[in-house]
Amino acid sequence: MNMSELLQIQQDGEERQSSPRPVTGFSLEEIGRRTGEEILLHGSVYKLRRMSGFAFVLLRTGRHVIQCVYGPEFSRFGMEELVEESCVRVRALVAPEERSRMGWELRLLELEVLSVPAELMPIVINQKKVNTSIENLLDYRMLTLRNEKQRAIFKIQEGICRGFRGFLQKQNFTEIHSPKLVEAGAEGGANIFSLDYFGKQAYLAQSPQFYKQMMVGVFERVYEIGPVFRAEKHDTSRHLNEYTGVDFEMGYIRGFEEIMEMEEAMLQATLGSLQEFCGQELEMLQVSMPRFSGEGTEEPQPWGVEVPHRREDMPMGRIPRIRFSQAKALVSEYYKRPMVEKEDFEPEEEDLLCQYIRGHYDSAFVFVTHYPTGKRPFYAMDNPENPAETLSFDLLFRGVEITTGGQRIHGYQQQLEKLLQRGMDPEEFESYLLMHRHGMPPHGGLGLGLERFTARLLGYENVRQACLFPRDIHRLTP
Amino acid sequence: MNMSELLQIQQDGEERQSSPRPVTGFSLEEIGRRTGEEILLHGSVYKLRRMSGFAFVLLRTGRHVIQCVYGPEFSRFGMEELVEESCVRVRALVAPEERSRMGWELRLLELEVLSVPAELMPIVINQKKVNTSIENLLDYRMLTLRNEKQRAIFKIQEGICRGFRGFLQKQNFTEIHSPKLVEAGAEGGANIFSLDYFGKQAYLAQSPQFYKQMMVGVFERVYEIGPVFRAEKHDTSRHLNEYTGVDFEMGYIRGFEEIMEMEEAMLQATLGSLQEFCGQELEMLQVSMPRFSGEGTEEPQPWGVEVPHRREDMPMGRIPRIRFSQAKALVSEYYKRPMVEKEDFEPEEEDLLCQYIRGHYDSAFVFVTHYPTGKRPFYAMDNPENPAETLSFDLLFRGVEITTGGQRIHGYQQQLEKLLQRGMDPEEFESYLLMHRHGMPPHGGLGLGLERFTARLLGYENVRQACLFPRDIHRLTP
Repeated sequence: MNMSELLQIQQDGEERQSSPRPVTGFSLEEIGRRTGEEILLHGSVYKLRRMSGFAFVLLRTGRHVIQCVYGPEFSRFGMEELVEESCVRVRALVAPEERSRMGWELRLLELEVLSVPAELMPIVINQKKVNTSIENLLDYRMLTLRNEKQRAIFKIQEGICRGFRGFLQKQNFTEIHSPKLVEAGAEGGANIFSLDYFGKQAYLAQSPQFYKQMMVGVFERVYEIGPVFRAEKHDTSRHLNEYTGVDFEMGYIRGFEEIMEMEEAMLQATLGSLQEFCGQELEMLQVSMPRFSGEGTEEPQPWGVEVPHRREDMPMGRIPRIRFSQAKALVSEYYKRPMVEKEDFEPEEEDLLCQYIRGHYDSAFVFVTHYPTGKRPFYAMDNPENPAETLSFDLLFRGVEITTGGQRIHGYQQQLEKLLQRGMDPEEFESYLLMHRHGMPPHGGLGLGLERFTARLLGYENVRQACLFPRDIHRLTP
Repeated sequence: MNMSELLQIQQDGEERQSSPRPVTGFSLEEIGRRTGEEILLHGSVYKLRRMSGFAFVLLRTGRHVIQCVYGPEFSRFGMEELVEESCVRVRALVAPEERSRMGWELRLLELEVLSVPAELMPIVINQKKVNTSIENLLDYRMLTLRNEKQRAIFKIQEGICRGFRGFLQKQNFTEIHSPKLVEAGAEGGANIFSLDYFGKQAYLAQSPQFYKQMMVGVFERVYEIGPVFRAEKHDTSRHLNEYTGVDFEMGYIRGFEEIMEMEEAMLQATLGSLQEFCGQELEMLQVSMPRFSGEGTEEPQPWGVEVPHRREDMPMGRIPRIRFSQAKALVSEYYKRPMVEKEDFEPEEEDLLCQYIRGHYDSAFVFVTHYPTGKRPFYAMDNPENPAETLSFDLLFRGVEITTGGQRIHGYQQQLEKLLQRGMDPEEFESYLLMHRHGMPPHGGLGLGLERFTARLLGYENVRQACLFPRDIHRLTP
């Protein structure tokens, strides 16, 4: 092989004059297609396995861990130059090799060492799993994420965001960037971080709620994927104090059911696209893709569970729905469990409801609708047929709430009255109310927690597993 | 036309049983193709023009302002039902009309009023422009954004983000979500917001710098589009205290020039895709698309301006480059302007340099390279040939800096020494340094201010024009 052929096939930034915009990452298939050729690769030495007279060298590239072979008969450098977690460029021959599962092996010919670690790793990251406590996993996050399976979580999370965005764009939602420094909290309560803003008191946004509503008056449909901040003192496996909110809001709805339908379709589209974008990571983590439900039925269901009919564009099925009050009764009666709190779910009840729905309707998801008015924020639209409940819903997924949504009040008088009823001061919400005063369409939307959704999808009990650098009541680093 | 045909063509959520996922927004072309048919539309009454015996009704939909006609001979409702900024559903006939520029007009047949504003507008938003002070424009932001031209700015901004993401995905960058609550500032200085975090002092991230570097050790190439916070007391037309940062970081670079090449290609791809995604908005705002530069040349250029050769995949040209020290000399000598500050640019110098480059090289952009070490953060890589300058750059666009970037220190000892040299305490950066200690590839990246880029592209002097809900030293609402 001559040099110009070699340059043609290289993709990793070597010889910049011929490839001014380097592209990282050969896939294993691409390498296999080059059997008999020499290729250039860069990456980090993930793992060394010294054998008698040769060594296996696992090279971690941007997306793959590629097994290479060091052998004194073809490698034109000393084995001692190979150090775990050093960054290298290599020239390698793709040699046919029947004993390899791939049908080829990569023989290291030349090595350029770009950097060498100053110290040995404080934690083992190059086994199949990082076997350590969650505290260690997170304390050494910038290192443990180098583990093949750990980083796969976040490639899948990227795929989820990509799926959401692609779907929402097609549905004519406009992406917005709302401020995170705000004058008043949208979700009420004491769970809000405050700070000094040039002598004024400011807060960190608990959600983009006010802004996405204002933008419905502008673009009809908007979405945002961004950080939200909750100063909750919960210390559980499902709470983070900073998380990534996937928020959308849509105008001209005829009922809050349209919001659930939009979410259902978004989840269908996103889960459907994941295989294409990150199939190898789904396989590596042995992710079991959730089903929605079997066929809908006209028959009355016990406890009022409704399953909308399957549509052609929803191959995974539809998500069953149940009213909050009936869900409470179901869990209490079916699982013979006393109902302690009537106005809210306990975590165990959410879990039991999901078990029931999975067992009886073959669905990993369930919509719970019509939450009590007292438990929803001041902007929630009450049910005109029963003002004690709201036109709202949560989506539960494998035992945990991942979405809260609903219709919002769009009329000025109605919003003003609800604020006053709650003893809130309308002057604090002056700019928010300007929107209602000057005309808004019927609208609603939802917020989904990206980390919770990812964790549930991948089967992690602890939401921190699905957050790059989690923030909780005890943790502000790394 | 019978009802079922009508249902077939409707797209706006009417008759949910037949169209469970409503799609908003007919384009004018789509309406024109339905001449002779009846269509269903929803939107806000943007403007009423009462004529003698009829009225023009401008309907604002999610993306368009569509002129409709009210006439007593075909409209089956009273004209008094039409109120500006009320939200309506209408049934309309697409009637051929030679006097109309489009060749058709929309005759309103039926009206359903969904909401009526409680008060008249405090500000005129339905003229071609919102004629008011910047303060009013921002105080009534949720209303003034309903103006056709105001909202077009943010449709273009969405197109820019979409372009950036699409390009970076193709280049194998992985999207990340880094925390905004941090223990230490990345960019140093006093320009940082602080807050109480469960009894500890926390800060709002000035950039995702530390995290994107850590993630280079994981994915090689990463990006993030998210909020960044600067507690700067500047009160200028180009500063915001919260803005949207477009950040990317890439490993295995052979020099910081690769980062500039990546940005150049990103801008080419993004500007190239804008026409397709938001052509109508670009036209509405009469946006003049920037050129990069003419052909490169081998001739030595005065003051050391370099113009890389045009490549086939860069039809807009390449961006000229000049060293910081030479740029300072150029402005001083060419414009006969005393050089007051040697280590930094004054805003007027940036403006003059851009004027010069535009006049001599036909480029709206210019890269300024090799900034003085003293003016760059502690993570910047010094030039090994001259430690007084860094392997760094800014990108100036139409007179304003929109990007700062450069190569970072990847060696542990080197980073430790630079911290100590600057009198900084390495213990405060313990988790950041863990990354260097355990092996990092040569890497670098950049941060681009989304609002500044948008403002410069659209020709706005004030960056607030290109921020949905700006935050500055005086403004925390709406």
